[in-house]
Amino acid sequence: MIRLHPKPLTPDAFAAFGDVIAANQRPPVGANAARFERYLDLAKIDVDGGCDSTQLSLMVCREASSLPYTLPLLERHPKGSQAFIPTSPFAFFVVVAPADPAPNLNAVQAFVTDGAQGINMRRGVWHNPMIGLEAGQTFLVVDCGQTDNCDEVALGETVVLERPQ
Amino acid sequence: MIRLHPKPLTPDAFAAFGDVIAANQRPPVGANAARFERYLDLAKIDVDGGCDSTQLSLMVCREASSLPYTLPLLERHPKGSQAFIPTSPFAFFVVVAPADPAPNLNAVQAFVTDGAQGINMRRGVWHNPMIGLEAGQTFLVVDCGQTDNCDEVALGETVVLERPQ
Repeated sequence: MIRLHPKPLTPDAFAAFGDVIAANQRPPVGANAARFERYLDLAKIDVDGGCDSTQLSLMVCREASSLPYTLPLLERHPKGSQAFIPTSPFAFFVVVAPADPAPNLNAVQAFVTDGAQGINMRRGVWHNPMIGLEAGQTFLVVDCGQTDNCDEVALGETVVLERPQ
Repeated sequence: MIRLHPKPLTPDAFAAFGDVIAANQRPPVGANAARFERYLDLAKIDVDGGCDSTQLSLMVCREASSLPYTLPLLERHPKGSQAFIPTSPFAFFVVVAPADPAPNLNAVQAFVTDGAQGINMRRGVWHNPMIGLEAGQTFLVVDCGQTDNCDEVALGETVVLERPQ
């Protein structure tokens, strides 16, 4: 059994898997006559793998999950990146493994966000199907949204997401 | 002087200008073993006008505005669509005019969102530079983010955004 204790999500720790979407990583630029600060270029949106276009969708949690949580599988999207941005502040967990042909369970990592962060996973990065800790939690999803764009694999070992250390 | 009283934002009322991004317009599909409901294809992301790729950015309000608010100008983005999605619930105003070569002030409309809605403006739609009603209000912006992608025009008349009717 593999027990994962999520680490705080930081851009450096997540760099091998994708981008952290947050308004604190680089200096912003002024916008709208300085009434706003704009944090540019926060995610590499990559939909060049056969998608028609970038898709926006909303995912609303209807059935909350809790820890310890046994991962049912890992999935990847071969055609493009996938971003999740909460539409209200809440922390969430993300379990990732490198974009190898199959998930390397020795290289699985778990992170917990700070409540404001979003993430953008690179094409092909293995990850858990997103879970919510409360019904109603909602993600804006930015991906290429094609129905033939999800590979799922069962795990050869029991992988359990436990409380952050 | 043109006085605008914002109307509630609805998909029908906004259809000529773009999309309303909300989890209530079409039936969702199940996702992640039915733990989530997913509302698909909420916005036509159009970055085919010369953008390198879809860009994600965050805009944080530093200087709040209040009503009545005199519009300083209208702007448009000739290279692609532009979406604004609040990262926490707050209502915001949007003033739009059709994607004519120059803004037709007789066709300007003002809307107010319900606090959960986002918007996606079609390429070339004239609109106000976004304003916030409280410092800290943050939008996720999905556009093509090029620096030479904003036309601004001064208005021939004073246009004032007043309280919703």
